[in-house]
Amino acid sequence: MSDLVTYLTRLGDNTLVLGHRLSEWCGRGPALEEDIALANTALDLIGQTQMWLGYAAEAEAKGRTADDLAMGRDVWDFRNLLLLEQPNGDFGRTIMRSFLFDHWHLLMLRGLTQVSDARMAGIAAKAVKEVAYHADRSAELVVGLGDGTEESHRRMQDALDRLWPYVGEMFIGDEVDAATAAEFGAPVPDMLRAPWDDAVLPILAQATLTVPDGAFAHQGGKTGARHTEHLGHMLTTMQWLHRAYPGANW
Amino acid sequence: MSDLVTYLTRLGDNTLVLGHRLSEWCGRGPALEEDIALANTALDLIGQTQMWLGYAAEAEAKGRTADDLAMGRDVWDFRNLLLLEQPNGDFGRTIMRSFLFDHWHLLMLRGLTQVSDARMAGIAAKAVKEVAYHADRSAELVVGLGDGTEESHRRMQDALDRLWPYVGEMFIGDEVDAATAAEFGAPVPDMLRAPWDDAVLPILAQATLTVPDGAFAHQGGKTGARHTEHLGHMLTTMQWLHRAYPGANW
Repeated sequence: MSDLVTYLTRLGDNTLVLGHRLSEWCGRGPALEEDIALANTALDLIGQTQMWLGYAAEAEAKGRTADDLAMGRDVWDFRNLLLLEQPNGDFGRTIMRSFLFDHWHLLMLRGLTQVSDARMAGIAAKAVKEVAYHADRSAELVVGLGDGTEESHRRMQDALDRLWPYVGEMFIGDEVDAATAAEFGAPVPDMLRAPWDDAVLPILAQATLTVPDGAFAHQGGKTGARHTEHLGHMLTTMQWLHRAYPGANW
Repeated sequence: MSDLVTYLTRLGDNTLVLGHRLSEWCGRGPALEEDIALANTALDLIGQTQMWLGYAAEAEAKGRTADDLAMGRDVWDFRNLLLLEQPNGDFGRTIMRSFLFDHWHLLMLRGLTQVSDARMAGIAAKAVKEVAYHADRSAELVVGLGDGTEESHRRMQDALDRLWPYVGEMFIGDEVDAATAAEFGAPVPDMLRAPWDDAVLPILAQATLTVPDGAFAHQGGKTGARHTEHLGHMLTTMQWLHRAYPGANW
């Protein structure tokens, strides 16, 4: 795979996996408004997936489509961050997972609007507006629930403690990042940590949540070296229709 | 489908669906012995499936195998009893589901050992020994848990209340049953109710459980007219490998 294809696949797999996870809430949200908000966010992310994986498929030039990439690859070919494939858990954990990712996603997309590759910049410019809204919304909910009742606080702290070891992977660069940074001026993940901390830590403080000690970072999703057990189960459900009826169309 | 094929498919789908449900417990049983017992029972049932669906595939003569029937059909082509596709719930509910089925299954197989079709009689003769053991074991557990602690009693009563509306379908015959009864001397489902009651009711009484009022019976599994929502989800997981890698072999 070329560096460009890998890079685009990572972007598209991130939005696909989180988009699917959020869609699992459809009809099960704790309140109608939240249910609809999660479904809308899922749709935004699936729309972004179509663009990223559509571009990846063209750049790959093997005659595959975005659908083929999304629905026909097995777990070892996915390149999403491990954070995003973690199960939804309760509503608080779902929101915390989105919150941690949304602010990184926003920084990435802002950087990507500036790259020299016009198509990548164009996709980022479209996506960044949606993701700015996702980031606002998840921040608001993190504060509301973290600084809420005793139970909602406990659940949000549990969520933060559990998800924190998956934060580090977002900021670990590799040779693909270096190559796309050199070629297109794409953001270098390591450089996003400081602005992410600036955005996220004050919100966690306002939410009366304690940032866990330790910088241990689970790795392997972005590189595909090792996913958690959860991704395969998710794909089983996600890909069922396409696997049972290959090439099915609306 | 000929009556024989339908009849064999029903037998094989019953054992396939319950066998898969029981296999879902693998590694999750409440005690090692129970875990292994459930896995062994699942293996017995999958072995019986191989025989029933293998015969069904041959009788159908469309070039399909038992694997094709098990792994390549969608939900509307399944002919199992609705009782068997119900989710496992807790251990008590799993045992109650087996108990209610095992005693019917035992009566069916005993009848089938007497049919004039030698292959069907042969499969039944092999299966009936395994199922006699299943029926003993589930009865023992129903008594132990029903007449156990307050909590285990409550759970078993809940399980019985919940599953009771799925009992009736086992005893409802149709034109396929009439045809196989006429042709081979296969058991007529309606005739099994009295001996089933004779076997099951004293055990439920010994378990200090109350048989629910009402004879309402969910129907549609055996005829394929309408399955519950649970079967499709189960097939998604069960058929994943075969769908993703069609024709894969060990």
